[in-house]
Amino acid sequence: MGGAAERRPRRRRGVQLIVYPNRFGATIAGLLRLLDGPLLRDVFEGVHLLPFYIPFDGADGGFDPVDHTQVDPRLGDWEDVRELASRYEVVADVIANHMSAQSPQFLDTVARGDASEHAGMFLTMGSVFTEGASEKDLLSIYRPRPGIPFTVMPWGEGRRLVWTTFTEHQVDLDVDDAETAAYIDEVLRALAGAGVDMVRLDAVGYVVKTAGTSCFMTPATMEFIHRITARAHELGMEVLAEAHTHYAMQVALASAVDWVYDFALPPLVLYSLYTGDGDPLRRWLGLRPDNCVTVLDTHDGIGVIDVGPSRHGSRQAGLLAPDQIDQIVEGIYERAGQESRLSTGRSASNVDIYQVNTTYYDALGRDDHRYLLARALQFFTPGLPQVYYVGLLAGHNDLALLAQTGVGRDINRGRYLTPDVEEHLARPVVAALFELIRFRNAHPAFTGDFDFGGSGAVITMTWTLGEHRATLTANLVAGQATITWTDRKGRLQRTANLLNPPWHTPDDLSQ
Amino acid sequence: MGGAAERRPRRRRGVQLIVYPNRFGATIAGLLRLLDGPLLRDVFEGVHLLPFYIPFDGADGGFDPVDHTQVDPRLGDWEDVRELASRYEVVADVIANHMSAQSPQFLDTVARGDASEHAGMFLTMGSVFTEGASEKDLLSIYRPRPGIPFTVMPWGEGRRLVWTTFTEHQVDLDVDDAETAAYIDEVLRALAGAGVDMVRLDAVGYVVKTAGTSCFMTPATMEFIHRITARAHELGMEVLAEAHTHYAMQVALASAVDWVYDFALPPLVLYSLYTGDGDPLRRWLGLRPDNCVTVLDTHDGIGVIDVGPSRHGSRQAGLLAPDQIDQIVEGIYERAGQESRLSTGRSASNVDIYQVNTTYYDALGRDDHRYLLARALQFFTPGLPQVYYVGLLAGHNDLALLAQTGVGRDINRGRYLTPDVEEHLARPVVAALFELIRFRNAHPAFTGDFDFGGSGAVITMTWTLGEHRATLTANLVAGQATITWTDRKGRLQRTANLLNPPWHTPDDLSQ
Repeated sequence: MGGAAERRPRRRRGVQLIVYPNRFGATIAGLLRLLDGPLLRDVFEGVHLLPFYIPFDGADGGFDPVDHTQVDPRLGDWEDVRELASRYEVVADVIANHMSAQSPQFLDTVARGDASEHAGMFLTMGSVFTEGASEKDLLSIYRPRPGIPFTVMPWGEGRRLVWTTFTEHQVDLDVDDAETAAYIDEVLRALAGAGVDMVRLDAVGYVVKTAGTSCFMTPATMEFIHRITARAHELGMEVLAEAHTHYAMQVALASAVDWVYDFALPPLVLYSLYTGDGDPLRRWLGLRPDNCVTVLDTHDGIGVIDVGPSRHGSRQAGLLAPDQIDQIVEGIYERAGQESRLSTGRSASNVDIYQVNTTYYDALGRDDHRYLLARALQFFTPGLPQVYYVGLLAGHNDLALLAQTGVGRDINRGRYLTPDVEEHLARPVVAALFELIRFRNAHPAFTGDFDFGGSGAVITMTWTLGEHRATLTANLVAGQATITWTDRKGRLQRTANLLNPPWHTPDDLSQ
Repeated sequence: MGGAAERRPRRRRGVQLIVYPNRFGATIAGLLRLLDGPLLRDVFEGVHLLPFYIPFDGADGGFDPVDHTQVDPRLGDWEDVRELASRYEVVADVIANHMSAQSPQFLDTVARGDASEHAGMFLTMGSVFTEGASEKDLLSIYRPRPGIPFTVMPWGEGRRLVWTTFTEHQVDLDVDDAETAAYIDEVLRALAGAGVDMVRLDAVGYVVKTAGTSCFMTPATMEFIHRITARAHELGMEVLAEAHTHYAMQVALASAVDWVYDFALPPLVLYSLYTGDGDPLRRWLGLRPDNCVTVLDTHDGIGVIDVGPSRHGSRQAGLLAPDQIDQIVEGIYERAGQESRLSTGRSASNVDIYQVNTTYYDALGRDDHRYLLARALQFFTPGLPQVYYVGLLAGHNDLALLAQTGVGRDINRGRYLTPDVEEHLARPVVAALFELIRFRNAHPAFTGDFDFGGSGAVITMTWTLGEHRATLTANLVAGQATITWTDRKGRLQRTANLLNPPWHTPDDLSQ
């Protein structure tokens, strides 16, 4: 495998696609053909390739690897990843919190208990609470679902309370164990060797467990994050840390890594469009770190914890009050239908019951103008924008897939073949979104300075770089936006209706 | 209410019916009409009335009372119970381990936490493990399902790990709390006042929790059983203790109370009829206590723990080896179909995943001869025989009800209206079972001495009282049995085919 030394120079930070290769393009090579093909050419500069390890279709949709160091042969091989990474920025997941209960390391531990050479890789209640735990200790452990994070499992001749933050199919790793550390390093080297530009640290807030704490985003967690970030940098990769948490913790995390997610944006944009109240979003624009990956939708649901009060440690208010959060959740159910309600919460195999499952397009009642307005707000917000493949096609909730699998998040994880993509592209909302992405990628102002303003239902966002300028003026009540922008000759242009591109020719924008 | 002093004299110990009033007779009064009516007259001497408290149809089919001191008005009132008890022996449940999470006492605790005057009634992890618990402590707790028995619940402003042995709908009581003790005493007095003859201590093995033990059938549990038994005796009621456990523990329990269940009998009879091997059943006949309520079927599934090795404390072998138990379980699935498999275990809301859900008739492949043979083995085994209402009608697995509710045990909890009963009575197997019950009730030999013998596939059981004699000769391989018996004139009669009554006229038998 090639090392970091052979890497191509880093590109500008254009819009990235978040995608399951098997659900969009069928394989990694198929995805590359789609990205390079006539439909998507020049739309994306990068790709977050959702887990493609063995198996990509486990109990938690690839986030429970059996072998994290290998590409699932049904999707391709490392050569395909390298080919993709040679033309696009590639983001790939590092899952350090847990591995599959079906992994050879854990199966051996189940079979042989402490006699297994791998037993030390896995956390049990006793390996963290060496002196025992009080009721308060156990209640302090933070988890994205109710209950305490232990599963009784066989362990040689006996049984152990294995630490399972998410589900019983995902057994948590002791990152202080030498074999675990070697395993994580092997994963990092494999990704770097394939030319991956950025590693996404999945669920990293949960990785380190310390008795008597929340076991979430503690000082020991931050130490781990510093350590793995330094190692990724050595290997020439940037680090994106994933954590759904109170905004203040997100701000702190942002200083430790290259990128964090702005998970507050999706609910704040919904709130502003549901109510016409732009204040919370404006307030957030003044607080948030700049090194954010911006999203409206991902393979997970829409997090509401991210705008809520802190759930552990000292109580701090959130970006929204509880009744405002209720307005979002009920607003989604109202627009996206009963299926969204049924696919959310405890009843639908959800890893995180505090996420609402729906496509973003359905959450906006399939209103093309509001959807494009939401995307414009995302693209004008500072950071690295990512668009989920379902959102790219303004997808509807996939009730057939939901009914087939019973997994709530599958409502927003539909499968698209190339002909589907072609068909969706014929829809004005999708064509307009493609234009908006190209605009975000190409206009030089977005590498300059950001400012925002407005009041009440009007939000303005402006980017300036020398003579170049791009301004979004969003009317949240009307659900309409205008963009004014300088073309390459410095003339001011105005797009009064985001649904009616073109706003420009490539010549207008390219530097 | 009348007190114990007004009680009618105790009857002879004839066969009892186990029944849900709402599923067989619709109400308590309706059940009494059925028992007194032409179809069932003279069949039963007693009734185990499954929980009729408010509500009779909670999350665990009545075993999660909201108000244990009141008759659910949809089923009748205490006067109806008293009326039933005036003509039949009545067995009623005392549920001391837990109450409904919807009970006013617990709802107040959820709302006000420790400020609630009822908070002390309920057990949390911390109220038992005051010094904290180690992983080993938690793994030592015995439970009829995997996992540890705590549910995170709101508790005033905070949260607690509430002790929930069975489901999150059933919150465990601290029987050492004064209010809990008063509550249990009120239940006992209400039952005695209505003329109930026997209280069944539901799930009594789990009632007392002691840190560092299995929290199941410990010395402290036995103390509680002694205490509640003494109080029931004061009130003129006998005590039947329900515990699914290793046979040695069942034998110990039998010395503390009036009656225990012979839960080993149902799987041993199946094993003997599946394999033709009578040795394990004969062995059990030599070991078992005499003060057993005998059953083949109840409202629960067929317990396999009862014939297995001990699961806590010192390891002791069971009545059957693991592969013999597998033969039973697979034998049931083979005969009773895929639905039985699907209704058993973790996936079907089962309180006890170690019970196999099926009607007994279906477990015997709907073979009339073998079913009557099984009942004859039950009735000849010393003890107080009970017949579950579904078994009385040789019922099939109720797949419609199972599909409707998704609750595994509902496969054996069908609803029967009076016309259904009439229809089933026309089936030779049901008519023959009624005859067998009448024979068991009426023949004087059954109040005498018991002996058993045979070898291999032949089991003999004989009862003798002076000149009176009744002998069952069962051929397990042939699935046929003969009964030889003395009629009132002392003549020896022989019934060569249990399916072809009558064997006698009432005159033959009555003393």
